[in-house]
Amino acid sequence: MSKLLIVGTVAFDAIETPFGKTDKILGGSAPYIGLSASQFNVESAIVSVVGGDFPDEYLQLLSHHNIDISAVEIIPTGKTFFWSGRYHNDMNTRDTLSTELNVLSDFQPVVPDNFKDSSVVVLGNLHPLVQSSVLDQVVNKNALVILDTMNFWMENTLEDLLQVIKRVDILTINDEEARQLTNESSLVVAARKIYTMGPKYVVIKKGEHGALLFNKENVFFAPALPLEEVFDPTGAGDTFAGGFAGYLTKTNDFSFENMKKAVIYGSALASFCVEKFGTERMCHLDSKEVFRRLQLFKNLTQFDIELT
Amino acid sequence: MSKLLIVGTVAFDAIETPFGKTDKILGGSAPYIGLSASQFNVESAIVSVVGGDFPDEYLQLLSHHNIDISAVEIIPTGKTFFWSGRYHNDMNTRDTLSTELNVLSDFQPVVPDNFKDSSVVVLGNLHPLVQSSVLDQVVNKNALVILDTMNFWMENTLEDLLQVIKRVDILTINDEEARQLTNESSLVVAARKIYTMGPKYVVIKKGEHGALLFNKENVFFAPALPLEEVFDPTGAGDTFAGGFAGYLTKTNDFSFENMKKAVIYGSALASFCVEKFGTERMCHLDSKEVFRRLQLFKNLTQFDIELT
Repeated sequence: MSKLLIVGTVAFDAIETPFGKTDKILGGSAPYIGLSASQFNVESAIVSVVGGDFPDEYLQLLSHHNIDISAVEIIPTGKTFFWSGRYHNDMNTRDTLSTELNVLSDFQPVVPDNFKDSSVVVLGNLHPLVQSSVLDQVVNKNALVILDTMNFWMENTLEDLLQVIKRVDILTINDEEARQLTNESSLVVAARKIYTMGPKYVVIKKGEHGALLFNKENVFFAPALPLEEVFDPTGAGDTFAGGFAGYLTKTNDFSFENMKKAVIYGSALASFCVEKFGTERMCHLDSKEVFRRLQLFKNLTQFDIELT
Repeated sequence: MSKLLIVGTVAFDAIETPFGKTDKILGGSAPYIGLSASQFNVESAIVSVVGGDFPDEYLQLLSHHNIDISAVEIIPTGKTFFWSGRYHNDMNTRDTLSTELNVLSDFQPVVPDNFKDSSVVVLGNLHPLVQSSVLDQVVNKNALVILDTMNFWMENTLEDLLQVIKRVDILTINDEEARQLTNESSLVVAARKIYTMGPKYVVIKKGEHGALLFNKENVFFAPALPLEEVFDPTGAGDTFAGGFAGYLTKTNDFSFENMKKAVIYGSALASFCVEKFGTERMCHLDSKEVFRRLQLFKNLTQFDIELT
């Protein structure tokens, strides 16, 4: 059975939206990626670090979704990474109110022996040197490596970021960050520039405007599901990446045609994520609901024009 | 053979983009709608007005695309409607530099007798009373009526606009204007509110982010083609509407399934419009190019997930 290795943050988030606010709840890129990928019943593990303040129930929640948490290091004297943010009324922009790196500041990731041969590796948003260190430990040279990053690392650790980007197959990045990384306004031209940096595939996430998958020959687009209400966008991008990676792990087929389907699965799962605060919706999601939502995506996008 | 009636402006445009600027060139909603619809070889007519300064070659250009121009009134002592605008670097926003209504200020549209039984009517962006007056003259009570409008009329002639909206089947409108008209931020909720105003279908145009087609039961999405370069966005929305209407006229099938295809045709044709200044690209477009672009749209959006 093919395996999925996830490195990313495990965090406390405190979120304010026009609909309400939360205390410190489970957050970080890795739980969103892991919970989303868990829909595909793949063997997965999270490599991360938390402090002594992190509730065991959160770790158990991940474990109950068949995510191996043995490589989530616990530093009893440390505090867990904390992020808080407030969304504006349009839900597309937010202010970061607080970022406390805490135990993340000197995190040394250790990949468990039984996941060094993973077939898919997701390097979630983290310091590029941590992402590199995880790659150094992966022994499967055919592993499909997916890297997610954000503007913070472009602005502060660009050289390290470019070094790790060289080593990955797929870069997932949002539209503004793709423009920032390449200094190009056209996303088509930006994607082309990113190939020269190393990745063979580029996924550009446009939030409520969907996601684009590129390689040198092809482009595919998946819309976001038009929703009556977005309750909390936190984690939608990671949920997308988790669904994308989970589907590729399960099918073990890394062709462009199959990646199209992975993008649709990622979009469908992300459409659930935004319906409730934090990871709440993703913790209680059954396969019938996912099936019905995929049907909505088909209705939304498929048409029948014969070209002969 | 079913017929298409188009009412809209015929104008001079002067356009500045980061790529260059034009003198006064052929513009206005009706030429874009007509040229786009002409791809379907339907019988069409434009109802509009120009001044004595309007070059006969522009009218001949429309006529050569099989558009009946006998109802384009020429007022020899008047001046043609003039618009000029400058696009910003992102090409998504623009400043209007000048708007001179001229002969449009007291335009009394007259629908030619042989187009009073048209099966599809496009009420292009114009004063709502002019749009109403055209509808009064249409005798085919089963005609599919498509109305396009913009924020200017919402702000200045809202009551007249609501009166004509009541009488149409399909409202096409951009996303910001849909939000403005309904005071709703979710486009799904905005569309639902628009049904209560009269139209059974709503098309929300999102520019580079594609277009949504709604009715009470269904929603369909067509992306814009990701382009390396947008040269001049002027007329893209009208070109979309013309392709949409032209396809529906040709097929004479007003089901939601067929409207999906019409939205794809509209999007494909709009993707040509932005490649050159003004109507230039649309004047020299052959069916093979359109065929190839439809293939790109299929590649861009179609996937194969079996749900059984």
